[in-house]
Amino acid sequence: MIDHTHDATALSWVASANSPETDFPLQNLPFCSFRRAGTLEPWRVGVGIGDQILDLTGWGITDLNALMGRPSSERLALRHRLFDTLKAGAPEVELVPQAQAEYTLPCRIGDYTDFYTGIHHARAIGKLFRPDNPLLPNYQWVPIGYHGRSSSIVVSGTPLRRPKGQVKPPDAEVPVFKASARVDCELELGLFVGPGNALGEPFRLDEADEHAFGLTLLNDWSARDIQPWEYQPLGPFLAKNFGTTISPWIVTMEALEPFRIPFTRPEGDPQPLPYLDSPAHRANASYDIDLEVWFKTPAMSEPTRLSRSNLRHAYWSLAQMLTHHASNGCNLQPGDLLGTGTISGPAPEEAGSLLELTGGGKQPITLPNGETRTFVLDGDQLGLRAFAEKPGFRRIGFGACDGVITPAS
Amino acid sequence: MIDHTHDATALSWVASANSPETDFPLQNLPFCSFRRAGTLEPWRVGVGIGDQILDLTGWGITDLNALMGRPSSERLALRHRLFDTLKAGAPEVELVPQAQAEYTLPCRIGDYTDFYTGIHHARAIGKLFRPDNPLLPNYQWVPIGYHGRSSSIVVSGTPLRRPKGQVKPPDAEVPVFKASARVDCELELGLFVGPGNALGEPFRLDEADEHAFGLTLLNDWSARDIQPWEYQPLGPFLAKNFGTTISPWIVTMEALEPFRIPFTRPEGDPQPLPYLDSPAHRANASYDIDLEVWFKTPAMSEPTRLSRSNLRHAYWSLAQMLTHHASNGCNLQPGDLLGTGTISGPAPEEAGSLLELTGGGKQPITLPNGETRTFVLDGDQLGLRAFAEKPGFRRIGFGACDGVITPAS
Repeated sequence: MIDHTHDATALSWVASANSPETDFPLQNLPFCSFRRAGTLEPWRVGVGIGDQILDLTGWGITDLNALMGRPSSERLALRHRLFDTLKAGAPEVELVPQAQAEYTLPCRIGDYTDFYTGIHHARAIGKLFRPDNPLLPNYQWVPIGYHGRSSSIVVSGTPLRRPKGQVKPPDAEVPVFKASARVDCELELGLFVGPGNALGEPFRLDEADEHAFGLTLLNDWSARDIQPWEYQPLGPFLAKNFGTTISPWIVTMEALEPFRIPFTRPEGDPQPLPYLDSPAHRANASYDIDLEVWFKTPAMSEPTRLSRSNLRHAYWSLAQMLTHHASNGCNLQPGDLLGTGTISGPAPEEAGSLLELTGGGKQPITLPNGETRTFVLDGDQLGLRAFAEKPGFRRIGFGACDGVITPAS
Repeated sequence: MIDHTHDATALSWVASANSPETDFPLQNLPFCSFRRAGTLEPWRVGVGIGDQILDLTGWGITDLNALMGRPSSERLALRHRLFDTLKAGAPEVELVPQAQAEYTLPCRIGDYTDFYTGIHHARAIGKLFRPDNPLLPNYQWVPIGYHGRSSSIVVSGTPLRRPKGQVKPPDAEVPVFKASARVDCELELGLFVGPGNALGEPFRLDEADEHAFGLTLLNDWSARDIQPWEYQPLGPFLAKNFGTTISPWIVTMEALEPFRIPFTRPEGDPQPLPYLDSPAHRANASYDIDLEVWFKTPAMSEPTRLSRSNLRHAYWSLAQMLTHHASNGCNLQPGDLLGTGTISGPAPEEAGSLLELTGGGKQPITLPNGETRTFVLDGDQLGLRAFAEKPGFRRIGFGACDGVITPAS
């Protein structure tokens, strides 16, 4: 529901929050876990405002998982209280500059699931393997997903070592164990679960919003040479679990209310089965959120944008991901993370992975300084960005999701 | 290493531990988390001895994950201390009868991975789908595994609701959402991870034993009608994550030392790649542990044994599972759980799933009371058992891993 906290004319007493460029205006209020950089202070729950952080320790909020477990009515009440505390005219309180902060994962992630809701990605990847039949017959019926690895999820800025693994070139007799030569990124958003459900107790599609706490940027790093050899028949494993990078910030679903759009299916596509369909869902279950991939080699002075897409291209909504996941009775818990899968747009330049952008590694990208890349080399930095914008509303940004690949061990 | 704690002649002052039938002689000493049934006391770390439990709270051991994180030298020292405390002649201390106890999961399971090391299972399942080419080309090179769901792992005795899900019969135009009619069991052992490794820091095969804490029974319940429709291309998901049952007991690797056997490959099979091979590993990395599936319908007075297999049939060792999992830098953490996959023997009656025992659901099993089954019906109980035995040593049992399927919601 849109209310006074989305009013674009509302200002904050934090001057930087009123800049049109900020990711974190008064209307955003994203959560993080932070401490003063270089200290061993305990991690604190914070809220981003402009270039500052409001420490919620004094509010009795010391555990984001506990907050996620509370009903959506309490989430909304907290948003209103945060808005009132930070709006222009309210008494100023002490803040921590983001420039002096360091971050950890925003919460304990019990289980991490990665979906595959980007139909243009699925079709593009499928085309590389099966030119005549790129999309598998279940894709338009089942929100395809698989379990990922929680332990190797890291916060933006954490370097990741290039993985080694079994690789079998198509013309080789036997596989070899070597450092991956095809490290790739995947442009995703991650949905943090709110209250969740008990084991054996599914919920209805129209109840799913209750269990959606907020969104983060997610880079599902992938080793494209390990993946094809290992993934049959049980799915991706070591090609993915060497690391997943997320941004430190959770943008709440409340902040994103103005950017809802209707959920529609292309003409001729099957409608979702009844457990994944409802009039209310069709009315506004998708989101208009711009997504970007940025890239910088050690020789470049500035990052360059490789791709731009939008969450509206997801074939399945966040509510459908949640509902389908719990439809067999599987219990979702506060702080669980659901990746959307790579959200590529329909145009080739809107692809969310290097595998797509380079035609399977065959057409190198030329960078502004003349260097070329097919996949990520040691020292290259990969950055994801996202923001929602719409006339009449403040721009809501997601902060940074950056990672660098370091040499293999 | 075999030492005095494996001496078959050593007796306990706990009389029931000296019975030849007990799962828990003095030589076993498995861990659990328990409390007095019907109370809301905090869960305690305990050690099974005969039909009793030794409460380790007074020993300062209140968290099994912390214990798992300690070096193997400390695990061994604790075993020696437990042995000395419970051996005949030592002063008697207060114990809790197992008949008065209830159990929870033995530790916090951060990540759960399920492997696929049963080659006879892989071949039998593959034969149902691809009669001419049952085993995929990667099987003999890669220890195939996938991430499972941690949140829905439950302890023995917890009822599980029959899952609903999308099912598409081969001759149907479109899928339907319905209660699964093909609920199956999978006979597995689960390996609990000990200290583990930091992200980006793999370990060598000959270091893997350091990270193996102990084994539990594991029933990887599977909905065989949901599985074929959903699993392409990212692997099993809702067909599995409605519930996984484990026994309350963790039998330590130290207790299983006498049951090590050489790791061998059938003649003509490829040898493992160097990172999964070593002389020490070949000498003794497999285990001789008998595994059983028991079954009881509501109309039966006693369970009947459906199948008997042995961990020796695993194509990949526990040490290879650990080493492969961390070979790309993926971090394993204390309390993580690694399932072996269904361990079927080479003979049809040694199969570890109903799918195999019934030829894909086509040849019903006739039970002792004349009833027949292809898959699990509501109210049916499934039980797994395991034990290691060998002349000159006491029999080491694993306790019970039981579950019942209740009607769909």
